[in-house]
Amino acid sequence: MSNQPEQNAWRPQKPRGQLIVYSGPSGVGKGTLLRPLVAEHRDIVMSVSATTRAPRPEERDGVDYHFVTREQFERFIADGEMLEYAEYNGNYYGTPRRFVSEQLDLGRNVVLEIEVKGAMQVKKACPSAVLVFVMPPSYNELRERLINRHTESEEQIKKRLEVAVEEIRQFHEYDFVVINDNLEDARDRLLCAIRAGRLVTRFHENLIEEVLELC
Amino acid sequence: MSNQPEQNAWRPQKPRGQLIVYSGPSGVGKGTLLRPLVAEHRDIVMSVSATTRAPRPEERDGVDYHFVTREQFERFIADGEMLEYAEYNGNYYGTPRRFVSEQLDLGRNVVLEIEVKGAMQVKKACPSAVLVFVMPPSYNELRERLINRHTESEEQIKKRLEVAVEEIRQFHEYDFVVINDNLEDARDRLLCAIRAGRLVTRFHENLIEEVLELC
Repeated sequence: MSNQPEQNAWRPQKPRGQLIVYSGPSGVGKGTLLRPLVAEHRDIVMSVSATTRAPRPEERDGVDYHFVTREQFERFIADGEMLEYAEYNGNYYGTPRRFVSEQLDLGRNVVLEIEVKGAMQVKKACPSAVLVFVMPPSYNELRERLINRHTESEEQIKKRLEVAVEEIRQFHEYDFVVINDNLEDARDRLLCAIRAGRLVTRFHENLIEEVLELC
Repeated sequence: MSNQPEQNAWRPQKPRGQLIVYSGPSGVGKGTLLRPLVAEHRDIVMSVSATTRAPRPEERDGVDYHFVTREQFERFIADGEMLEYAEYNGNYYGTPRRFVSEQLDLGRNVVLEIEVKGAMQVKKACPSAVLVFVMPPSYNELRERLINRHTESEEQIKKRLEVAVEEIRQFHEYDFVVINDNLEDARDRLLCAIRAGRLVTRFHENLIEEVLELC
């Protein structure tokens, strides 16, 4: 087949990047799976969130977060510049729209690592986003990982597990489920889900109309 | 995370192979995309159909088809041994169940290259099958490819295009759409769809129940 673009061609599967919404319960290993893929594959980039909270000593502006003032953040919201946002403990967190759309225009797949609530906002705002949910191999495994971090009290772990269950209840809102049973396999699966995103049938709903128009 | 299987683990994403139903209009290049993948990747095998039609000189039994008698085929049907079947021009064509399930048990992904009608039979019989539909880059491209084969009359091509449109109308029954705009890219996409099959959310509907049971 010819590589030439055609006037009556279906929506192409290459040119624009794919927006990937990436969630999973706290402790499941989302960052550990994703970071090496971003380092290895030029077509995959992570979105950097904006926040109004103060940077921690090791955090760099524009890398870990875009650190902005409350006034700036509220102006972004008013101008429709936030793809999704939420307030936690008196601070805003959100995804600035501009970086995402610039990278998508460059043909890159942009991954938003966000919580389920934000994910649902993006799903509504961007029906062309593909949603990936990371699952622990079991509930017990997730609990043990949280315990083995030794960073939280029993009460905090209990709370995290409750939130995890609430998030897992919504996994059917996602297109793909990646079970993190071992790092290497789970990473391959995540790469596969990111790359397969644009092949999902619901992104090609215009195909029939185009066929009927032409024949 | 541990690699050890756990008693309360979710359904694993590795052990059993994935059944892939693979369709697309005549002339779209299904075989040209698939054959090199089967040759290169040990985890991907093609199912060999059974038929009651006589072998052509170049065809080998067990490779191109399983050539069987009408009595054998009807016994297979009666015994529930055909995953899907249909009759064309007085001959039966179908997919024997045994090879498919043996290969799936070995952890291989088994591709059934079948028409949309057979695909719908398999979808009903095996809800765990993932369905992949190959599209031409455009209607005009498909028409030109059929014309350039120089093997069929104008009338036959017209008929094929009518069937193609009817098949394309049902593409939303499939999980993934692979547009064959150029061979190399389309082959990568097909491999990606085959590998991503087991990640599709609807195959993990038991997750919630398992979570609720355990926590």
